[in-house]
Amino acid sequence: MDFEEAGTLVLPAAHGKAICLRAGWRVRVVNPHGTQALDFWAFNAADPSEFLSMDNVRSFNSVAYVEKETALVTTQRRPIVCMTEDTSAGQHDTLLCACNPAIYRELGVKGYHRSCSDNLHEALGEIGWKVPFTPAPLNMFMSVDVRPDGSLDRILPRSKPGAHVELRAEFDAVLVFSNCPQDVTTINGPDRTPRDCVLKILPPADAP
Amino acid sequence: MDFEEAGTLVLPAAHGKAICLRAGWRVRVVNPHGTQALDFWAFNAADPSEFLSMDNVRSFNSVAYVEKETALVTTQRRPIVCMTEDTSAGQHDTLLCACNPAIYRELGVKGYHRSCSDNLHEALGEIGWKVPFTPAPLNMFMSVDVRPDGSLDRILPRSKPGAHVELRAEFDAVLVFSNCPQDVTTINGPDRTPRDCVLKILPPADAP
Repeated sequence: MDFEEAGTLVLPAAHGKAICLRAGWRVRVVNPHGTQALDFWAFNAADPSEFLSMDNVRSFNSVAYVEKETALVTTQRRPIVCMTEDTSAGQHDTLLCACNPAIYRELGVKGYHRSCSDNLHEALGEIGWKVPFTPAPLNMFMSVDVRPDGSLDRILPRSKPGAHVELRAEFDAVLVFSNCPQDVTTINGPDRTPRDCVLKILPPADAP
Repeated sequence: MDFEEAGTLVLPAAHGKAICLRAGWRVRVVNPHGTQALDFWAFNAADPSEFLSMDNVRSFNSVAYVEKETALVTTQRRPIVCMTEDTSAGQHDTLLCACNPAIYRELGVKGYHRSCSDNLHEALGEIGWKVPFTPAPLNMFMSVDVRPDGSLDRILPRSKPGAHVELRAEFDAVLVFSNCPQDVTTINGPDRTPRDCVLKILPPADAP
């Protein structure tokens, strides 16, 4: 496995990318328009059966949403990444699935439409990995409220242009980002336009 | 695969069971004490990569909790079971992970403790299946509120003794039930005592 060196990558609209980060290295996820939802997954680089688990995150922290201080734990209840910075509107969603081919069929799309679920598997394939299911993602820059009656309210994106989230790998990890390709609903903003994001790979904060 | 015949099974406290149901067959899950949480999973009998998905259920229905009318859809967004009856307190939880070995270590338990996650894999093993991860369960007879600030409130069980839920298989399916072995927290009631439940296998409602 090739671990990332310091540098900047453009994550094209509607596409995904897997990066391998050594423990202590960071990735700053910059949202130039502020409105782009990013689905996020993390796997133990040494054992893909251990991965960031939304149902364990909710249980471990007793929260429905992720904020900067939320412990982002795996299926083994170990923190895999730490959100070291967050200039977004926060309240990152843990509740909704990655968009997938069946959702676009429900929405009336004819033919193939890119999806966060397919982006995950495409990105993992590019590093030679195959994971036989789609874990529930952390939906960054995306907020869903739970109303008192238990119904869900998908909120229009409300982060400012240039907002960023910084994640530090707590051990060697494969991180996968998908710029959500949703252009039918308003989850990426009222203009329904998927946009690029930027990934800045940064060495450990205390590196010389 | 041996599909279940009509009959009654006792699900022993703290243990799990997998049953194979033909399309249209039903299982009535009876909770003699009313307080016992049951973790539930469902898999396509012909393809275990398609399974009941809590993140898709929340997305498909725009709800955080499961009630009788909620569509219980798979990773392919197809209903796999239908809740045809529910005399429990409802508001079945979709948010929390199955209890697992790491949770019992966090709670200070020394040595091995049974868990819903292990029960799932043990039960699948008894029918010759191996699934390499633990899907998020539907936690029946268990309710968790989301407070306005996004924090979670685990509610004491409030179903009456003898409450039941009835599930109908929408296509040939493997259903797995785990009587939650939790005896440290009060998720199974203030006396922290895991208890038996009963599974009644019923033929299609229109059978002669």
